[in-house]
Formats: sequence, C-alpha cells, structure tokens
Amino acid sequence: MKKVAVIMGSASDLPVVEKAAAVLKEYEVPFEMHVYSAHRTPEQAAAFADNAREAGFGVIIAAAGKAAHLAGVMAAHSTLPVIGLPIKASELDGLDALLATVQMPSGVPVATVAINGAANAALLAIQMLAIEEVSLQEKLAAAKKAAAAAALEKDAEVTAKYTV
Amino acid sequence: MKKVAVIMGSASDLPVVEKAAAVLKEYEVPFEMHVYSAHRTPEQAAAFADNAREAGFGVIIAAAGKAAHLAGVMAAHSTLPVIGLPIKASELDGLDALLATVQMPSGVPVATVAINGAANAALLAIQMLAIEEVSLQEKLAAAKKAAAAAALEKDAEVTAKYTV
Amino acid sequence: MKKVAVIMGSASDLPVVEKAAAVLKEYEVPFEMHVYSAHRTPEQAAAFADNAREAGFGVIIAAAGKAAHLAGVMAAHSTLPVIGLPIKASELDGLDALLATVQMPSGVPVATVAINGAANAALLAIQMLAIEEVSLQEKLAAAKKAAAAAALEKDAEVTAKYTV
Amino acid sequence: MKKVAVIMGSASDLPVVEKAAAVLKEYEVPFEMHVYSAHRTPEQAAAFADNAREAGFGVIIAAAGKAAHLAGVMAAHSTLPVIGLPIKASELDGLDALLATVQMPSGVPVATVAINGAANAALLAIQMLAIEEVSLQEKLAAAKKAAAAAALEKDAEVTAKYTV
Amino acid sequence: MKKVAVIMGSASDLPVVEKAAAVLKEYEVPFEMHVYSAHRTPEQAAAFADNAREAGFGVIIAAAGKAAHLAGVMAAHSTLPVIGLPIKASELDGLDALLATVQMPSGVPVATVAINGAANAALLAIQMLAIEEVSLQEKLAAAKKAAAAAALEKDAEVTAKYTV
Amino acid sequence: MKKVAVIMGSASDLPVVEKAAAVLKEYEVPFEMHVYSAHRTPEQAAAFADNAREAGFGVIIAAAGKAAHLAGVMAAHSTLPVIGLPIKASELDGLDALLATVQMPSGVPVATVAINGAANAALLAIQMLAIEEVSLQEKLAAAKKAAAAAALEKDAEVTAKYTV
Amino acid sequence: MKKVAVIMGSASDLPVVEKAAAVLKEYEVPFEMHVYSAHRTPEQAAAFADNAREAGFGVIIAAAGKAAHLAGVMAAHSTLPVIGLPIKASELDGLDALLATVQMPSGVPVATVAINGAANAALLAIQMLAIEEVSLQEKLAAAKKAAAAAALEKDAEVTAKYTV
Amino acid sequence: MKKVAVIMGSASDLPVVEKAAAVLKEYEVPFEMHVYSAHRTPEQAAAFADNAREAGFGVIIAAAGKAAHLAGVMAAHSTLPVIGLPIKASELDGLDALLATVQMPSGVPVATVAINGAANAALLAIQMLAIEEVSLQEKLAAAKKAAAAAALEKDAEVTAKYTV
Repeated sequence: MKKVAVIMGSASDLPVVEKAAAVLKEYEVPFEMHVYSAHRTPEQAAAFADNAREAGFGVIIAAAGKAAHLAGVMAAHSTLPVIGLPIKASELDGLDALLATVQMPSGVPVATVAINGAANAALLAIQMLAIEEVSLQEKLAAAKKAAAAAALEKDAEVTAKYTV
Repeated sequence: MKKVAVIMGSASDLPVVEKAAAVLKEYEVPFEMHVYSAHRTPEQAAAFADNAREAGFGVIIAAAGKAAHLAGVMAAHSTLPVIGLPIKASELDGLDALLATVQMPSGVPVATVAINGAANAALLAIQMLAIEEVSLQEKLAAAKKAAAAAALEKDAEVTAKYTV
Repeated sequence: MKKVAVIMGSASDLPVVEKAAAVLKEYEVPFEMHVYSAHRTPEQAAAFADNAREAGFGVIIAAAGKAAHLAGVMAAHSTLPVIGLPIKASELDGLDALLATVQMPSGVPVATVAINGAANAALLAIQMLAIEEVSLQEKLAAAKKAAAAAALEKDAEVTAKYTV
Repeated sequence: MKKVAVIMGSASDLPVVEKAAAVLKEYEVPFEMHVYSAHRTPEQAAAFADNAREAGFGVIIAAAGKAAHLAGVMAAHSTLPVIGLPIKASELDGLDALLATVQMPSGVPVATVAINGAANAALLAIQMLAIEEVSLQEKLAAAKKAAAAAALEKDAEVTAKYTV
Repeated sequence: MKKVAVIMGSASDLPVVEKAAAVLKEYEVPFEMHVYSAHRTPEQAAAFADNAREAGFGVIIAAAGKAAHLAGVMAAHSTLPVIGLPIKASELDGLDALLATVQMPSGVPVATVAINGAANAALLAIQMLAIEEVSLQEKLAAAKKAAAAAALEKDAEVTAKYTV
Repeated sequence: MKKVAVIMGSASDLPVVEKAAAVLKEYEVPFEMHVYSAHRTPEQAAAFADNAREAGFGVIIAAAGKAAHLAGVMAAHSTLPVIGLPIKASELDGLDALLATVQMPSGVPVATVAINGAANAALLAIQMLAIEEVSLQEKLAAAKKAAAAAALEKDAEVTAKYTV
Repeated sequence: MKKVAVIMGSASDLPVVEKAAAVLKEYEVPFEMHVYSAHRTPEQAAAFADNAREAGFGVIIAAAGKAAHLAGVMAAHSTLPVIGLPIKASELDGLDALLATVQMPSGVPVATVAINGAANAALLAIQMLAIEEVSLQEKLAAAKKAAAAAALEKDAEVTAKYTV
Repeated sequence: MKKVAVIMGSASDLPVVEKAAAVLKEYEVPFEMHVYSAHRTPEQAAAFADNAREAGFGVIIAAAGKAAHLAGVMAAHSTLPVIGLPIKASELDGLDALLATVQMPSGVPVATVAINGAANAALLAIQMLAIEEVSLQEKLAAAKKAAAAAALEKDAEVTAKYTV
C-alpha cells in the first residue's frame, strides 16, 4: 500500500495534526510525519515533494496556518494529490489559512478540507488510497455504518429524554 | 481505469463545469456528467452516490453554488473521494459556496478546490486515479513540464520587452 | 394541533437547541426532538422529512453548524416550512453555518433565524402554527405584552439609577 | 384563505420583489403589495403590522436593502410570521441586508431567505399557509415533482451531450 | 443647554453604555438614559423620538447589538441628529451591529461610531452641542490638550525605558 | 449660521461628494468644498481643521476611500463634529474605507455614514446645525413629511398595479 | 545602484504590474521583470531569489493573485526585503491574495502594499534604495512636493467651482 | 548605521511592539521607541516624521490598532520607507487595522506586515538597512540558517515520535 505523508509547517501545529495520525493508525495506513516549513526550510519541503512518489507515497497532507503556503509548495513540486489542512493559527479565525490554501491557480490543485479538520484530511487520504485498495474500502464502509449507528443511538437518547 | 463522475447542481453551472470535462478528455479519462440537485432531485443524487463505486467510478466531482450542499450529499452517500467545486452563483462572490462546501463535519470530508476552479477539480481527480495508474502519472508529469515551459516562455517575452 | 419537529445534526448542538424545547413546552406545543445528521445518517434524515407531514408535523426546525446542510435536506424532502437554525460550531463565528443555511436555491426555501437563535426558531414555528390556531395567537400576544412590560420595568430601573 | 402581505422598503426593490408576486399568483394565493419604509413611513409600516392579522393576513413578507430594518419593524408590531427578504442594494453585496435581517434578538424572530430570494420568500409564505390548507399542499407537492422532472430532463440533455 | 438622550436596546448593553454616561457627567451635560427596544417596545421608542426635540433633547444616542435597529427607529421618528453605537452582542464580532447601524438609506442618516465606542458616542454628542455652546468648546479643547499631554508622558516613559 | 466644510481626499471622489453639495444648497446652508488629502497634503488638511472653528465652520464632512484617514485627521485637529463619508474606491467594496473611518480610538470620534452616503452626510451636518437653528428644523421636518408623502404615493401606485 | 526585481506569477498580471515598471523608469532605477510562478516554475522562482543579492538586486517585488504564494517564496529564499503586491485575480475581490501575502509567519516578513497597488510597490522599493542613495531621496522629495502641488491645484478648481 | 524608529499609537500596544525592540537589539541595530498617536498627538507624530531622515533614521515602524492611521501619517510626512504593523486591538480581529494600514493611496506606500507581526516588522526594517550594510546581511543569513536548523530539529523529533 502507498504511504501517506503528513507534513506540517510548524511543530506548533502538532496538537491539531496528531488527530490525522490517529485516524491513519486506526486504518493501519502507513504514514510519515514531518515538520517542513514553506518559509523556513523551503528546500527540504520542495525536495520531499520532488521525491515523494518514488519514495512510495500516494498522498501528501500539508497543514499550515496564516499565509498557508505549504500545501502549495507540495503541489508545485509533485503530481501526487495534495490535501491542504488550514490551521487556525492567527488573529483571523483561520480564514487567512483557508483562502491561502484553497484558492490555487489553474493547473495546481490542492484538495482543501475544513479549518483544523485534521481527521477529515486523513480520511480523505484513505479514500484516495481506497480507490484501488479493497481492504480500505471495507474499513471505510464499516466506519460509515458505525458512525450512523452512533448517531442513531444519540437520536434515541435525545428523543427519549425530550419526549413528554 | 475507474471513471470520474462530474455532477453539477444546476445546468446553469455548465459554462464553468465544462472546463472539467475538457481536462478529463485531454487526459483520456472516462467520465460521466450529470445534473443532480441536492435540493430538487435529492433521491437521484443520493442514489447515484450510493451506487457510484459499484458502477465503476473512482472519484466524484460535485459542483454547486450558494448553499452548496451537493458535494456533501455525495460524501454522505459514498466512501469514494468527493471533490467539491464551489460555483460563484450568488450575490456573495462565491464565499457562501466555498464555506458550504469546505467546512464539512468530522468523518465526511470533501476535497474542496478554488471557487470556479473546474480545471483543477478535474486535475485533482486525475491525480487521485494516478496514484495507481502509471500512464496518468506520465501525462501529469508531462503537463507539469509543459506548463513550466510555457511560463518560462512568457518570462522570456516579458523580460525582453521590459529590458532597457 | 400539528407537531413541531426539532432536528439537530449532532448531539453536541443540544445545549443550544434545548432552548427551543423550553419555548415549545412553555407554549404547550407538541414536539419531537431528533438527532439526524445530513452527513452521517442522511437516509434517516430524508425519511423523516419525507413522512413528516403524514406523521402530523406542521413545521420542521433543523439545527446544524459549519457546512450546515441539515435544513436543506429537510427542505429537499418535504413541502413543510423548514426553519434553519445555524449553530456556531466552528472556527468561523457561525458565518459558515449562516450562509450554508440561508443561501438556498430558488424553489427550496429555508426560513433562517439568527446564529444560535434557538428560542426564536421555536417562536417562529409557533407563529406559523398560530396562523390558524387561535389559542396560540393569544399566547403570542400575551408574551409580546409581557416582554414589553419587562423591558419597560428595566427602563424604569435604568432611568431611576442614572437620573441626577 | 389568509392573505399574504408583500411589503418592500422602496419602490426600487420592485424588480426583485415582483418575482414573489408572480409565485403567489401562480399558486392563486391572495396577496397585497405595499411600499412602506421603516425609515420614511415608519408609522404606516407599524400600523399595517399592528392590524395585519385582523385584516386577514396570515404571513408578512418584508423586503429591504442595506440596514434592512423593515422585517424587524413588522415583527415588532405583529405576532404573524414575518419573512425577511434581504435585497442587494448597496456597496456590500447584500451582506449588510442579510445580517440586519437575520440577526434578530430573542423573542422577535424573522424568517430570513437568501439575498434577493424573492421567489423563495413567496414559496415559504405558501408553505406556512399550507400547514392547514390542503389545496396548497397539493400544489406544493406537484411543483416539487415538476421541478424534479425538469432537473432530470436537464440531466438527460447534459449526459447525452457529454457522453463520448 | 439641550439634553442628550442615551437609549439602549437592552439593559444588558449597560456595561458598555455606562461609559457614555460617565463622559456626559464629566462634561456636566444633562442627559437621560432609557431602555427602549426597537423590537420589544417599539411604540415607546417611537414615541420618545417623536417628542424628543420638544422635550428639550438636542441629540439622541442609540445603542444596540446584532440586527441593531434602534438608531434607525430614532432617526425615522426624529430630525434630531442620532448617534448609533453598535454593541458587540452576538456571534459575529459586532460586524452585524455595525452594518445594521451605519448602512442607512438616503434621507435618514445615523452618525455611527466604533463598535462598543460608548465614550466616543458621548463625546460626539457633546461636540454637536458645542457647535453653539462656548463652555463646551472650552472643555473639549482642554480635554484634547490633556489627552495629548498624557500621551506625551507615556512617550517619555517608553522612550526612557527602551533607550540603550 | 455656521458653515459646513466638505473635504474630499481626492478630486476623483467628486462624483459621489457633489450630492452632499446639492443637499446643502437645497437647505441654503453655507458651505465650502476642498480637496485636501491626508497623505498628499497633510499640512493643509491639518491647518484647515486647526482653524475651522474660528473660520466659522460648525461641522466638517470628510470623504475618503481605501485606507480612509481624512476624517481621522480632521478629528485629530479639531473639536468640531466630524462626519466621515467612506467612499467605495478600491477592490474591497468600500469595507476598507468604512472600517478605517468608523473604528476610531476613544477620545476622537468620527460620525460615520453609509458607504457613498453623501446625501446623508450633508443631512447629518444640517441636523447638527439644526440643534439650535429653528429655520433648519422646519426644513428638516418638511423634508421628512415630503419623503413620507412620496413613499406613500409610490405605495399607492404599487398597490394599484398589483391588486387583482 | 542596486537593481529592483519585479516578478509576477503570471503574464496575466502584466496590465497591473507594468505601472510598477513605469514608476521605476521615471526614477531611473535599474530593474528586471520576470514571470516566475510559485506553482508552475517553483525552481526558477527559488533560484532567482537564492541568487538575487549576488546578482546585484537590492529589493524584490513579487506580484500574485488568489492563493498568492510568490512573495512568500521570494522571502523564503532570500534575505533581501521582499515587497508583496496582491493582485485582484479571483472571485473574492483580492482579499484572498492580500491575506495570503501579508499574514507571513514570524521570521519571514513580506512588505505588503494595497491590492493592485503596483505604483506603490515600486515607490516603496525606491524608498528602500533611497535609505543610502541621496539622488533618490531628492527625487522622492520632489515627487512628494509635486503631488502636493497637484492636489492643491485640484483643491483650487473644486473650491472655485462650488463656491456660491 | 541608520537608526530605526519604532512608533506606536498607544502605550497599550507595548506588549506586542516590544518584540520588535527585542529583535532590533538582537541584531544590534540602533533604534528609538516612541508613543505618538495619529489622533491624540498628531503634531508630534507629523513633526517626528518630517525630521526623521535628518535625525538619522533609515526606516520607520508604525504600530496601531482599529482605524490604524499612524503608519499613514508617517508616510505622509516622510519619504523614508514606513513599515505598518496592524495591532489586534478591537472587536474585529485586527481586520480593521490591517485594511486601514495596507490600503494606502497611490504615491504613499506603507509596507504592511501581518497582524501583531512585531518581530517581522523589525526584521523587515533590518532587511532594508541590510541592502547596503554587509554586517547585517551576514546576521540575516545566519539567522535564516539557524531557523532552518531549528525547524529540521523539530522535524527529527516529530518524525521519530510518530514513526511506527
């Protein structure tokens, strides 16, 4: 199975990003985590992206805040699908990171998820790998069922509590 | 090769969405286009998503404007990766469609691209299929090279014109 | 009297939504509360809306945050009036939920109230039922008078305190 | 059948608002249209709302732009359900009218529809009247079916045109 | 000397609004404070504005949050200058109150100050009265000098502390 | 009678600002118009404000776009009431000018009107002068009546046209 | 004298960017213009920045739209001062480009000018070079005087035209 | 070496601004700090800017919040490069200060950094001085290397911790 790369722009993003790691572990998808900054270690970031496909990666997740360029750097240096995870890290509620991640120019897409949506970034990566991986398809389907069941259980609780 | 589904919420989105079709054709990726509305034909939309994987699709692109729910419907009814394409269709510059597409709850990701970024939606779908499809990897790499070459040609023109 | 359905997308919305329950109880309007998610239990959500009128409901309140699609699902599957209650649940102050709820396409309206405006969602439902229910008209009129009286009492206090 | 009041803050809102009139005519719902300004004719606006229920109205639609106070005036002076229709009339894309209409204080709800969503304002009013009016329920159901059929026809066209 | 009316939409605005009272006391300008709501006590609000000039008021300050209509009601019912004070009272950082206060239609101006800018609302009222009141002109000039002197003292402290 | 100063930051603001001149002429209020830029002729702007009261001015209107500092300069250099008129002159719909004009620090208020609200800026100035000028009070009252009458005439037209 | 580099992300930015060239010519400051894209030609962009100081450049201007990463790339690869020029190129009025340019992380500043502010980008570059270049100081001072004179001429025209 | 002026609009900005002082000290760049307000001490602010070049300053940093005019005042009164530092000081997340600082009119640029980006304001000033100062170039290059090394150390930690 191809690996997932989880790159964050700063170690301070870790509290959000580790939810992505948790999801990948849960699905037993191999992954690597790195701190590469588009602005402080641009060469390492670019080099990683340049070699990611040959190194066995299938998807890159890039998390960054403020003028969040990291996903763009990954997408500029690789034709792997790149998932952008905007981090709420500034004075503007994460809107800056969202726009800096999603508004990419034609030819260089970034698959953007919700602000601080680390679990979804991982799930989206798994869905991409699952296009061809039947075992992941089954896990995704099971998780979807489980989420529905959990929601319906909550429904039963709430309905019971509020029925007069 | 898996097929790409290109769904739009309204036929009025076609002028934007057909750029996605053009890119898919250029890469010789099989695709189907549909008009399914999250609000006017919700059953058909849901049924399509429910069956999309078995029908041979690998990725779903969903384009919609305003309170853009279509990508969310697709993601709710399928574990295929869903690409959300926010359409500028209202009085608010497309910001409504962007937020309604990208801010998905945990467990149900949508891979969102730029407002009206139809070509990028298609490219992102191709990148996902290319995780395992070597022929697509080559085409993507070639296109990246060609885009760089075209940009450098422009650079030469501009530099020449403005050098004194 | 027709019943009011109070649906929320997640049990985590309950602290806001239970103010709606309190208002409905105060007016002795029969209601049911459910947790149905547009994205985790879309079929139950759709099925509920499909059958709501026959089940004796007159109005549906749908509360959701972020890319708030729940009210849209209800409106897609029912011709009952649907009240959308945007929940502040994300990094963007509830603006995402507001836009995702109110900016509905032509043909499928959602009656949107203020962000976290749960009491108003219930009152609006009661006003709709009161179009034909004289007893509710009287209660609404009495409440309006009481609110005015309470405000004027506050006015008297403030005026007294700040008069020199 | 109860009547619908369609009030606009300025005659310049008429090009948008007359779509509401067209929908009400199509459903054969009796209605009256007025130009009452929250700021230029506040007494007439208040007097209309004060007497609207006794005058046989079941719902009030209030359309206004910029610092859109008209729906709030109606809701302050009546316990009828009030539908707020924000008009794009200023330099700010209608966001000012949307916020001034939807962010009502507790106790005084306004059922807000999309910016310039005049057809939806009328449909919502009809849905409210249809809570008890069976004939309107049937028309709404028929219209929903027709909209679905029209969308599916568009789907057939688009699918045919883009199938290779 | 004409009096200043300080009206707030809700007693919960008092912690912000009392800074206006403090400034008016400091300048020995006569004033009255009231809680009148555009939505809960619209008749009292309108009646107050209708009679404000005859009652000896020269300026009206109106403070309100969310869909802040109070200043607009005052301006609709009086030709006195009305100062709008947007209160941060909702989920949207006060932007809703600011737009609902400042974006008034032609013919009915509201003199809007900063979000929560209660002291400035009072100062602006005093500046208006000072157009003809020489004693207030002198106090305003003295306060301006004092503010400059205080700022320069701070400058001296900071410069001293950070000079190496 | 005191004069009104109408200052604009750039002659390119004239098409908007001349509506203020028209209103002042209509009310026979003496005024002077100037082009003083906070950034290009800051000394003249400051000198004008420094001397405005002695020169017989009672109110200053300051119109500017983008990072609209002109009203702030006037307020910094005078204790006359300063009306800020934000001009839509940039890529951001006038929101930049609105915030740069209205969000003044404590001690230095600017009475801000709507974006491009030139007529209201003039009316507000007249209302300020009218605090003591009985003749202006009468003209303002008459204009308010005339505006109401015009609105009611429009109401009659619209009601007639849309009554079936 | 050090040279100025004027880099744009796309040749489509040229109509805005050439105003920067015009200003640099007017001041007889040597410059070079290039089209380097952060996403299409990231290596050339990085290489240019890496070598810019040795190549005789003193300042880099980087113009880009949407998720505007170009200035960030320059700043990541050089310790020269980098001026970011956000271009209005998308559906969001340039706000995306502004935030993506200005909200840089600590350690990697970008000197951001107004959206589409190409002339100011050039002037700012000249001001930086003028820190040590006396001839440029004189030209800047002369231009400031000329701008003031031109504004005052406009003032005279406007005052004359509107004096009654 | 030329000095850097660090001006703030209010002593309450000091907790943010002192990070700029710390950076300047670290680079051994001479600087002076002042509290000059565009609105409370406009004459001192203007006088400082008028004389700044002759007083040996090479760059001015101006920090202010809300309707942040201070950088504009500096730029209006000097041809030195002016760095604008928007301070988050109001109810609007600093967006008001950002727009009031960056959206300067043509001819009067302000080099704007991120909201609360005090360290970057200082670094940018140092980069400007370093155009001609070789010793500063060396320090900047060393700091860039050190930041990269620190980031890579973090990368090693994170990679180690999350490698399974």
